[in-house]
Amino acid sequence: MKFARFTVDSKVYSGVVTAGGIQEITGDLFESWEYTGKVFSREEAHLLAPLVPNQIIGIGANFVANKEDLPSELPEIPVFFFKPVSSVIGTEEEIMIPDGTDKVKFESELAVVIGKEAKDVPESEVFEYVFGYTVGNDVTAPSHFHKDGHWTIGKSFDTFTPLGPVIETELDPFSVVVTARLNGVEKQNSPTDLMIIPIPKMISYLSKVMTLKPGDVILTGSPVGAEFVGTQDVIECEIKEIGVLKNVFAGTRMKV
Amino acid sequence: MKFARFTVDSKVYSGVVTAGGIQEITGDLFESWEYTGKVFSREEAHLLAPLVPNQIIGIGANFVANKEDLPSELPEIPVFFFKPVSSVIGTEEEIMIPDGTDKVKFESELAVVIGKEAKDVPESEVFEYVFGYTVGNDVTAPSHFHKDGHWTIGKSFDTFTPLGPVIETELDPFSVVVTARLNGVEKQNSPTDLMIIPIPKMISYLSKVMTLKPGDVILTGSPVGAEFVGTQDVIECEIKEIGVLKNVFAGTRMKV
Repeated sequence: MKFARFTVDSKVYSGVVTAGGIQEITGDLFESWEYTGKVFSREEAHLLAPLVPNQIIGIGANFVANKEDLPSELPEIPVFFFKPVSSVIGTEEEIMIPDGTDKVKFESELAVVIGKEAKDVPESEVFEYVFGYTVGNDVTAPSHFHKDGHWTIGKSFDTFTPLGPVIETELDPFSVVVTARLNGVEKQNSPTDLMIIPIPKMISYLSKVMTLKPGDVILTGSPVGAEFVGTQDVIECEIKEIGVLKNVFAGTRMKV
Repeated sequence: MKFARFTVDSKVYSGVVTAGGIQEITGDLFESWEYTGKVFSREEAHLLAPLVPNQIIGIGANFVANKEDLPSELPEIPVFFFKPVSSVIGTEEEIMIPDGTDKVKFESELAVVIGKEAKDVPESEVFEYVFGYTVGNDVTAPSHFHKDGHWTIGKSFDTFTPLGPVIETELDPFSVVVTARLNGVEKQNSPTDLMIIPIPKMISYLSKVMTLKPGDVILTGSPVGAEFVGTQDVIECEIKEIGVLKNVFAGTRMKV
């Protein structure tokens, strides 16, 4: 099932995307919801990010190029970071490159949406707490990383976390391929079995540190191939079973 | 004015703390609220963290020991980090030391509560966006810092962000002293003019990166003197004009 948030004539709706259009729903995605009976055509609906996350957690450097490169031992403390919810935009929105940097990267990622409060969850049970999956673009300005390794500012600018186009609830995360095209040219293309820390281990680990909540989004890492971009570049992050998350990079008056 | 969240007989209330008790209020603290007319005695009310933050942003290493040590030039990119909202507890609640570490520190801090959406705010105007102030304890397990400088996990454990006891709206942040007592012995005691990056610069900088939202909490850094603690240690973080944030460290079954 594909869940979307969208506007029609500036009003915000939630719905289920079907072949016959988007069927409006009301209620809480993670608790209970129902159809209103109203159907919008795909053409009249302007898609938003498919959820307003509760929080966004990312993992750094989580893909290898080839299976042979997978380390025999996993890192004791993975590189996790937070991104602010204020950085979220939807598909077809502009990513604003902050003034004062010409170094901004795209990073296509599979994003996990948590659906139930999760604490101390063993690896074998993590999928009971997953609501679904979307595509994320972990846009990053390495020029704004602190020299001592703190990535916070370089990942926190407004518009730096495109999510979408929909949340797919029926996905096998082990059988999908994370891709990105820059101006139509493929730059990233990796199956999720090239992840160093696989999703069950990642979510289990996080749940032992902090209580994960419905609406938490976990960006599971980006394949090799991310590049620096500039104004007017068009980035399409795609996971075939979910859809295409397409954004254009634009300049901005922001100066930090 | 001192705002509190509290429970009486397990029901959650908001209120204004006065000499005659806690006067219940309803509504949105940042939009509009009104008195219900109901008054609770201070004794029957069990205080909670004074708000559920929208997000929590901290700044690292922001105090010097003496004014002479203040750097003549400010760092170009300050060390900012996020803490998850799931780590928040109130005064008198237990801080759980995760199994697998014996290195946990307290850090007493002045916490700024944002009241209005803030984007690109000049230093001279930041206080128009501040709702009030509370005391924060930025509990930290340096054993869980990543060797490449990522602090995320070491600061994200459940119970690692005590806030309280109240939000004080009538505070001059330039004239207060941030203190901490460990088992009754003073360990931290610094006026806020020992901050390297002062509050106006801190909030202005952040607002140029990300849109700050009502309910965002900014931990403004901890004075010199923080120490490692153990089970049964009692930490009291205090800013006289706000109150005492008191917590006991306890062991836990959490193992990461």
